Amino acid sequence: MSEPLYRDPAAPAPERVRDLLGRMTLTEKVGQLNQRMYGWQAYERTGSGHRLTDAFRTEVAAYDGMGALYGLQRADPWSGVTFADGITAADAAGVADAVQRHMAERTRLGIPVLLVEEVPHGHQALDGTVLPVNLAVGSTWDPDLYEEAAAAAAAELRARGGHLALVSALDLVRDPRWGRAEECFGEDPYLAARFTEALVRGMRRSGVGVVLKHFAGQGSSIGGRNSAATELGARELHEIHLAAARAGVREGAAGVMAAYNEFDGLPCAASRYLLTELLRERWGFDGIVMADGGALDRLTRLAGDPAGAGALALAAGTDLSLWDDCFPRLGEAVERGLVAEETVDTAVERVLALKFRLGLFERPYVEKPEQASDVRELSERVARESIVLLEHDGVTLPISPSLRRIAVVGPGADSVPGQIGDYTAPQRPGSGVTVLDGIRAGAAPGSEVTYARGCELVGGDLSGVPEAVALAASADVAVLVLGGSSAREADARFEANGAAVVSSGNPVGMTCGEGVDLADLRLPDGQSALLDAVAATGVPVVVVLVQGRPHALPDLTGKAKGVLCAWYPGPWGGRAVADVLFGTASPAGRLPVSVPRSAAQLPVFYNAKDHGYRGYVDQSATARHSFGHGLSYSTVEYAAPRLAHATVTAGEPGTTCSVTVTNSGTRPVRETVQLYVRRVSGGTSWPRVRELRGFVRLDLEPGGSAEAVFAVDAEALASVTRDLDLAVEPGEFSIETGPSSDRTRGAALTVTR
Amino acid sequence: MSEPLYRDPAAPAPERVRDLLGRMTLTEKVGQLNQRMYGWQAYERTGSGHRLTDAFRTEVAAYDGMGALYGLQRADPWSGVTFADGITAADAAGVADAVQRHMAERTRLGIPVLLVEEVPHGHQALDGTVLPVNLAVGSTWDPDLYEEAAAAAAAELRARGGHLALVSALDLVRDPRWGRAEECFGEDPYLAARFTEALVRGMRRSGVGVVLKHFAGQGSSIGGRNSAATELGARELHEIHLAAARAGVREGAAGVMAAYNEFDGLPCAASRYLLTELLRERWGFDGIVMADGGALDRLTRLAGDPAGAGALALAAGTDLSLWDDCFPRLGEAVERGLVAEETVDTAVERVLALKFRLGLFERPYVEKPEQASDVRELSERVARESIVLLEHDGVTLPISPSLRRIAVVGPGADSVPGQIGDYTAPQRPGSGVTVLDGIRAGAAPGSEVTYARGCELVGGDLSGVPEAVALAASADVAVLVLGGSSAREADARFEANGAAVVSSGNPVGMTCGEGVDLADLRLPDGQSALLDAVAATGVPVVVVLVQGRPHALPDLTGKAKGVLCAWYPGPWGGRAVADVLFGTASPAGRLPVSVPRSAAQLPVFYNAKDHGYRGYVDQSATARHSFGHGLSYSTVEYAAPRLAHATVTAGEPGTTCSVTVTNSGTRPVRETVQLYVRRVSGGTSWPRVRELRGFVRLDLEPGGSAEAVFAVDAEALASVTRDLDLAVEPGEFSIETGPSSDRTRGAALTVTR
Repeated sequence: MSEPLYRDPAAPAPERVRDLLGRMTLTEKVGQLNQRMYGWQAYERTGSGHRLTDAFRTEVAAYDGMGALYGLQRADPWSGVTFADGITAADAAGVADAVQRHMAERTRLGIPVLLVEEVPHGHQALDGTVLPVNLAVGSTWDPDLYEEAAAAAAAELRARGGHLALVSALDLVRDPRWGRAEECFGEDPYLAARFTEALVRGMRRSGVGVVLKHFAGQGSSIGGRNSAATELGARELHEIHLAAARAGVREGAAGVMAAYNEFDGLPCAASRYLLTELLRERWGFDGIVMADGGALDRLTRLAGDPAGAGALALAAGTDLSLWDDCFPRLGEAVERGLVAEETVDTAVERVLALKFRLGLFERPYVEKPEQASDVRELSERVARESIVLLEHDGVTLPISPSLRRIAVVGPGADSVPGQIGDYTAPQRPGSGVTVLDGIRAGAAPGSEVTYARGCELVGGDLSGVPEAVALAASADVAVLVLGGSSAREADARFEANGAAVVSSGNPVGMTCGEGVDLADLRLPDGQSALLDAVAATGVPVVVVLVQGRPHALPDLTGKAKGVLCAWYPGPWGGRAVADVLFGTASPAGRLPVSVPRSAAQLPVFYNAKDHGYRGYVDQSATARHSFGHGLSYSTVEYAAPRLAHATVTAGEPGTTCSVTVTNSGTRPVRETVQLYVRRVSGGTSWPRVRELRGFVRLDLEPGGSAEAVFAVDAEALASVTRDLDLAVEPGEFSIETGPSSDRTRGAALTVTR
Repeated sequence: MSEPLYRDPAAPAPERVRDLLGRMTLTEKVGQLNQRMYGWQAYERTGSGHRLTDAFRTEVAAYDGMGALYGLQRADPWSGVTFADGITAADAAGVADAVQRHMAERTRLGIPVLLVEEVPHGHQALDGTVLPVNLAVGSTWDPDLYEEAAAAAAAELRARGGHLALVSALDLVRDPRWGRAEECFGEDPYLAARFTEALVRGMRRSGVGVVLKHFAGQGSSIGGRNSAATELGARELHEIHLAAARAGVREGAAGVMAAYNEFDGLPCAASRYLLTELLRERWGFDGIVMADGGALDRLTRLAGDPAGAGALALAAGTDLSLWDDCFPRLGEAVERGLVAEETVDTAVERVLALKFRLGLFERPYVEKPEQASDVRELSERVARESIVLLEHDGVTLPISPSLRRIAVVGPGADSVPGQIGDYTAPQRPGSGVTVLDGIRAGAAPGSEVTYARGCELVGGDLSGVPEAVALAASADVAVLVLGGSSAREADARFEANGAAVVSSGNPVGMTCGEGVDLADLRLPDGQSALLDAVAATGVPVVVVLVQGRPHALPDLTGKAKGVLCAWYPGPWGGRAVADVLFGTASPAGRLPVSVPRSAAQLPVFYNAKDHGYRGYVDQSATARHSFGHGLSYSTVEYAAPRLAHATVTAGEPGTTCSVTVTNSGTRPVRETVQLYVRRVSGGTSWPRVRELRGFVRLDLEPGGSAEAVFAVDAEALASVTRDLDLAVEPGEFSIETGPSSDRTRGAALTVTR
């Protein structure tokens, strides 16, 4: 008997899909849309290795196949997987191959299973190399660097048998109370779009498909609550929340994950508008739409029963479920007439097409990589480029080698778990470089580095303050490492989807991450008191913020000589921090998100609608530090921007904007020159204050000048039309350049009809 | 020559409109859409009376007519009008008649002018009787009482020649940071709809047309900022922000005012969707759409020039401008082809139709009212019914006559301006009853009432605290009157539209009102310290909150034995407060808005989308006091609700819900029984936690029982469909009754197809 057509690598993929689909029973089809199982329940450790569980065999047998297996290699407190029972880098290929061998040998059609893994910032697996969180990535303003890091992380994943990487890329930090702020590239659509492209490109280079999380508008959840409620309108959706998804789709993303949040009263997984009309019909997306964990079962509330919920999601455009009971009942839904089998077929076609596209049929087993990727080096590099100098008196930093007594203080100073963020696996004991480690290693020879924790991360216990004050008082400089942590405690409790369960009033050792939203964004009382007490000694204080969201910052004048924001810089981030503190690296990061003064003044994003608000009577409505802000150890002068043409037509609007940037200080600088477009008048919708439309990083030696040249084209000038399309509308524009969103100079541009 | 048809009172109004329109030049037509002038600049005081100004004559002459004159009788710090130069009750009819006589005698067609006045809570004119603010009105849960008050206020307006009352009715307090919270009936669409109906009905009884402010969605402005930015989607608009407008239109409102805020990227005055498709085509509205002050000139930013802005607004459905330069240029717009003259005609027809409907042609001059209305008595009554007992230890209130030494303390205790709210005229010296006055008058004979201000309204100056503490320490009970004030200082600065100009960091003597948004909702430091210090004396403390918005309340257990919220109770509100303190009146008010714990936890409205949010890690996400809450001096028991039918059809869903309510305490009680609908499953959009759909007030003697019976009909069960219509969708419901939105019991109702 000859091989069936779908097994023929020379046949066109669509024909292979059709052939295979034609051979499948309804049950087998439904199985291809199934990703119900927690992957870590698919194996168990034996004395000598791992074996597949009965649960896995049963799940495969139930549908004689399996669309995707989520999180085979996931390890974290939620899954409960540790080095004692999990899959390490050394074991991974073997287990993955065992899974695929089971599919090949124990199912009728032998369709390989997609191995889907969380790779939010490195693979969330034992020995998976952790990158800085996306908010740190966004701070680098360096998509090329991120592309390298993403490619390296993906190579690591491929070497362990994974095919699809789930990565948060589409969410924006519109409200920093949200615990998932750390997973976002920032508050800005354009910046997120550039990193999303880099992500998809980088992982594709390593043969990994990206599933972009989350589509769409999850950053607009009310109150920064990790919930599903939004008041999001179509215009805000289109103006703010779609750019990254559009860019990622254009770049060839393998999938998008439908978000938990509502749009127009429907959870995204049930929104035909989002998943079909917009994503497929308008954008031409041909990948898969995956539901977020458990999201489809929630639809039972609307549909009345699980089969109806599955039908609702399928009809909207969801192809693959996650941990759901309702999608596996699509057979029942078809039999009851709730959805047509053709609709099931369409989803199955997409899943199969992706399996063909990723080469699962030809290469189901792990191939030894040509060369090991250097993820760790890239992780450190991203960390180094991401550090933002928020405030500086101009003299204290970098720390002079003559300051030999350095007191390191604070709850964030010596904790690897505290600096790696959420969605991370347990780290090997002894691995990583904390800020304290980095300072010890980086301090000038003969320096004395002392350390006191000073206070806990949360709460107001001040019992550790005196020790810290004593250390600081006898030091030449004090480095206070404050902020937050997303480290999951061993006794943390979790929702069915892995979000942490919190109870208000019970301080826990984590202040950020999924499920850990914070109302009041001030540093906790203990940390504030520690800062006050150390500053009161008169020792020069440098604050390093290790955090997953921008905390609200008071006016630190008189308390801190310098303030650095390092976000969660990853396991080796302490070295990056030390490099910047001691000046072996320049502070090159720029804020991808505005830093508020208080939670009471939210929101503070820079690209608000431009209505000239004057502020609250008791507080400013402006950010403490604006989007794009970041100081350096030098000073940089911006000339006025120059346009090649002062007038362009809406039909062919191309021109360029040039600006000369000069390092007027005494140290080298890596300057991020930013281009903003401001719609002055005209157009069919109210404009925003300004919108980022370009950026470039320039290395400038002291005294050196360079010119940044930006394309001012249809993409830069486009706005969302009445019909929710993108187009250049005639009117007056100001094309602005500057070092941050609140320090720009503009050149007038007229766009004629 | 016979009288023209339009002068014939017997002719049908549409024919009169057509006849008159046919006689008008384009300039005269444009004049009918003009409301550019500030009315207080139309007259000046002479030795013996008032005369019309040249400015007025010029404005009338420019278009040989005038559509409307805004605020002829307005008096306040913004207009600068005082008793020294304004129009008192005694002068008003004469001035109004002089204006109309000028129109009759000095214009070709003799079309009377609409006299438009602010009547937000009583006529904002000298001698205009001030009612409690709408937030207090909302607290009464008594639309019938408000109808009486509205009728009386309208009679006062008619007696002074006014035709159209501008009243905030449509805005909802979705974010209490907003300074205009006081102008809203609350956070709930249903409650606001009932009061809006009562308003329109009451004023119509007195021959006054109401212009409902503001259409639509202004309560959704981002950050509670008195600005125009929203993220408002169509569904949130329909589910939350339209009910009051729809009810007011159904009741025959003369006009609606287009709001400043955006919807779908357009300020409402430029939104054809809102003003034409929704309001006129879907709802059949036949009144006028008025722009908010200066709102059309803002459209110049979109349209490029004033004539274009006018054309944009007119084409969208705006009929009458306010203080704008662009609408008076509609002649130019027609000539330039920016808008058709027919579109101008349509707007003019609406303005003229309203003038005919209100009888301006037949009765242009003021007629002596049959009997003077008793607005003042109604103002007091509303105040008395609006007071909400937020917290109580069950024993301290009412204040026993045996407590003879009463210390009254706080910045709100003795200020009439501080208790009347924004949009009020100067009061006659010596008029009004402050809380201190009320307590002095109401205390048992022989009581000693002492008073100390204690602290200023804002700021942290504690110099007055010791005096207050000393008074309290020697008293039997201390009444602390805390909160906010919307009293405009004499030196306040204003925007061109009358909103106060605030500068952050400069404490001013006002914390609320238009333009005075507050970020941090805590009571100011001085007030908090005063409360702490007085409570520390051990004297029983009763807090009375006089305020225009819900301040965030900490846990006051151990500090206050009772907490009353009086909002701005109007000039005689001090008597109402005293009546409740001493028990001559029951605390009958119920919260029309949720009281937050902090600004950091916003939003806290009760009718959020139901996604089971668990709360922030550092704070609860629930309100300190929920919508509908309000204690009494008695205890009330609710039986389980009973439905007449457990199953109804979506087509004919009528049933009733009954609940027996019993006064189990020892004092009479006026109980507000509330009906909520909770969508449990089914439907085409995600449900909210619960939604108010009925309420009734019952007077219950001690031991007495009564049954509240609610219609559970199509209106109660309707939700917003996929097509943004209202319809009953099949599913499972819980029909709930209770004394507040967070203390309900439900009965299951199935709605079948």
